[in-house]
Amino acid sequence: MSDFGWQPEALDGAARAGHLHTAHGIVATPTFMPVGTVGTVKAMTMDAVRSTGAGIVLGNTYHLMLRPGAERVQALGGLHRFMDWPGPILTDSGGFQVMSLGSLRKLDQDGVTFRSHLDGSEHRLTPERSTEIQWALDATISMCFDECPALPASVETIAASMRLSMRWAARSREAFVARDGYAQFGIVQGGTEPELRAESVRALTGIGFEGYAIGGLAVGEGQELMFATLDATAPLLPADKPRYLMGVGTPDDLLGSVMRGIDMFDCVMPTRAGRTARAYTGFGTLNLRNARHATDPAPLEAGCPCPACARHSRAYLHHLFRADEMLGPMLLTWHNLTYYQRLMAGIRAAILEGRLDAHAADLRSRWQRGEQP
Amino acid sequence: MSDFGWQPEALDGAARAGHLHTAHGIVATPTFMPVGTVGTVKAMTMDAVRSTGAGIVLGNTYHLMLRPGAERVQALGGLHRFMDWPGPILTDSGGFQVMSLGSLRKLDQDGVTFRSHLDGSEHRLTPERSTEIQWALDATISMCFDECPALPASVETIAASMRLSMRWAARSREAFVARDGYAQFGIVQGGTEPELRAESVRALTGIGFEGYAIGGLAVGEGQELMFATLDATAPLLPADKPRYLMGVGTPDDLLGSVMRGIDMFDCVMPTRAGRTARAYTGFGTLNLRNARHATDPAPLEAGCPCPACARHSRAYLHHLFRADEMLGPMLLTWHNLTYYQRLMAGIRAAILEGRLDAHAADLRSRWQRGEQP
Repeated sequence: MSDFGWQPEALDGAARAGHLHTAHGIVATPTFMPVGTVGTVKAMTMDAVRSTGAGIVLGNTYHLMLRPGAERVQALGGLHRFMDWPGPILTDSGGFQVMSLGSLRKLDQDGVTFRSHLDGSEHRLTPERSTEIQWALDATISMCFDECPALPASVETIAASMRLSMRWAARSREAFVARDGYAQFGIVQGGTEPELRAESVRALTGIGFEGYAIGGLAVGEGQELMFATLDATAPLLPADKPRYLMGVGTPDDLLGSVMRGIDMFDCVMPTRAGRTARAYTGFGTLNLRNARHATDPAPLEAGCPCPACARHSRAYLHHLFRADEMLGPMLLTWHNLTYYQRLMAGIRAAILEGRLDAHAADLRSRWQRGEQP
Repeated sequence: MSDFGWQPEALDGAARAGHLHTAHGIVATPTFMPVGTVGTVKAMTMDAVRSTGAGIVLGNTYHLMLRPGAERVQALGGLHRFMDWPGPILTDSGGFQVMSLGSLRKLDQDGVTFRSHLDGSEHRLTPERSTEIQWALDATISMCFDECPALPASVETIAASMRLSMRWAARSREAFVARDGYAQFGIVQGGTEPELRAESVRALTGIGFEGYAIGGLAVGEGQELMFATLDATAPLLPADKPRYLMGVGTPDDLLGSVMRGIDMFDCVMPTRAGRTARAYTGFGTLNLRNARHATDPAPLEAGCPCPACARHSRAYLHHLFRADEMLGPMLLTWHNLTYYQRLMAGIRAAILEGRLDAHAADLRSRWQRGEQP
């Protein structure tokens, strides 16, 4: 085991290429983390996830604590063994999902009491319990337990929420048991208010974490405001620590965020879209349920090495979705995750070669141009 | 391309080991054919199917003619390319499934008119059209179009149905376009009446086919009566042609049928059971939804090379089914097909070594003993 850390390799503008060193392996950054909600990346075996080029995956504290239960996962050897992913795993803190429960949850200064969406049973999360759960799951990277206000909200509400999250960050840090190669990330909050974001960064860097996440974005504020918030926030973060933008996003979101200094991403988009016949490609998105694909012998995306593209026609993928066959979601999830990994690898290569602006212009032009006739 | 044929390798009692030579490759027999109803073995990629050891798969004429349509599959290069299975494919004739439509179908001496279960549209199958569809699909082995009476039925009804099927067999043969390495199998009918079965065999061998199937069994008559019918029928079939028992069955059915001279099988059991948490193993079946598996770190079946067993615990498989995650059906289908292929490989090895009786006794004793505590 080695110390946890992020090693820079190259800069291109604000964009960074590097390597994340962890107890469970090294990950090239910038990186996209597929979401493995309850111990499975939906519709994928972990061998398939590996084959897409993914280096690190995400697990959800909220879902895993309810089913099968953190202590059960721990007794079974931890989440790595449970889900067959010996590589690094980042777990969220449960905060975002608990806050999304609406009337099913009750917030106090100490934590949150909530009812399970599965069976209505009552549970409680605090910074201490969230940190303990993530430890029990054997998360390579644990996240601080934070509070996310429902938007829209007043600046006062966002400020109060951010300050509560900062107090919880201190308690999460206190509860965190350091281990070689493991990490805990603080989460910057403060909505789209640059001054609140700056205050949040000061609070977190005052505590000190192995990495810093930016939370509370991609919740409906729009890409422009999200990018503006990144412009105001990312430069304040320590240059020698990894930066993770939570829950983002589309390929264009990822590109723009890397160009603003972000190293790590997670999002359900490629997996969720894959289950609903929507494909991400270098020429934009397309819906394979569309009748125009019914007789098309061409691959979904020429040159893509995933089995959906390498072995099948669009007509076959269309047929699978029309027939409600599981193989449709399986193949299209595989493709979308492959596309996201290839996208990140291409961006990383461009950073290393100092040509990110040109690469970004090329990517955007292909996405906008759409498919060649 | 080479001629189609079955080459015997060893006999052990009535059981036969050999090789099936086809335009799309050689298959060791006895063999189990996974069912790929509409151009996909449910919940499996074809790479996964290959990894189980399967050498030949089945496609369904009824389902494929309705969606996506036989001529569309043909235009896309045939079923092998469509579903990414370059190996041999056997297609059923649609007869069994059309007969199962009950009030949605109308039988006459020339064929069957029926309404699609998908959209109510009217379609017609005759021996000629079924044979043409199977040719369009590029089936390595086509089946004769036959009529299967709903059971229970009088001997007179079964006799009349069998004789109609024999007339249809002659018409199917007439319509079949011979190609090197391709085959058409006749289907022996006649219920559980030995004399009707014998009459059916005489009719079919009088026409002459590359192989012979036994149909109309495993429809509720029970294993004892099925085996008695095989005992009466199989010895009448040409010794130098492959024999296929349609729609069978449990591991014990397969064993008993091989011992009565059957070479080929297909059944939805391993795939359907896999989607409903039921596992086939060397020590019988078990249901992974059962709470006793919730904390069990042991593999489903020690020594099984499938990813469900090699990489995961029973507790994980239990969790996936409880959480309704697609990976549960995916992994358990993979396991069940692997078990069926290993079962057939073990039976084949025993035939080659002349120890099938002892092997059968051992298999049955393990199935009946159930799991060791």
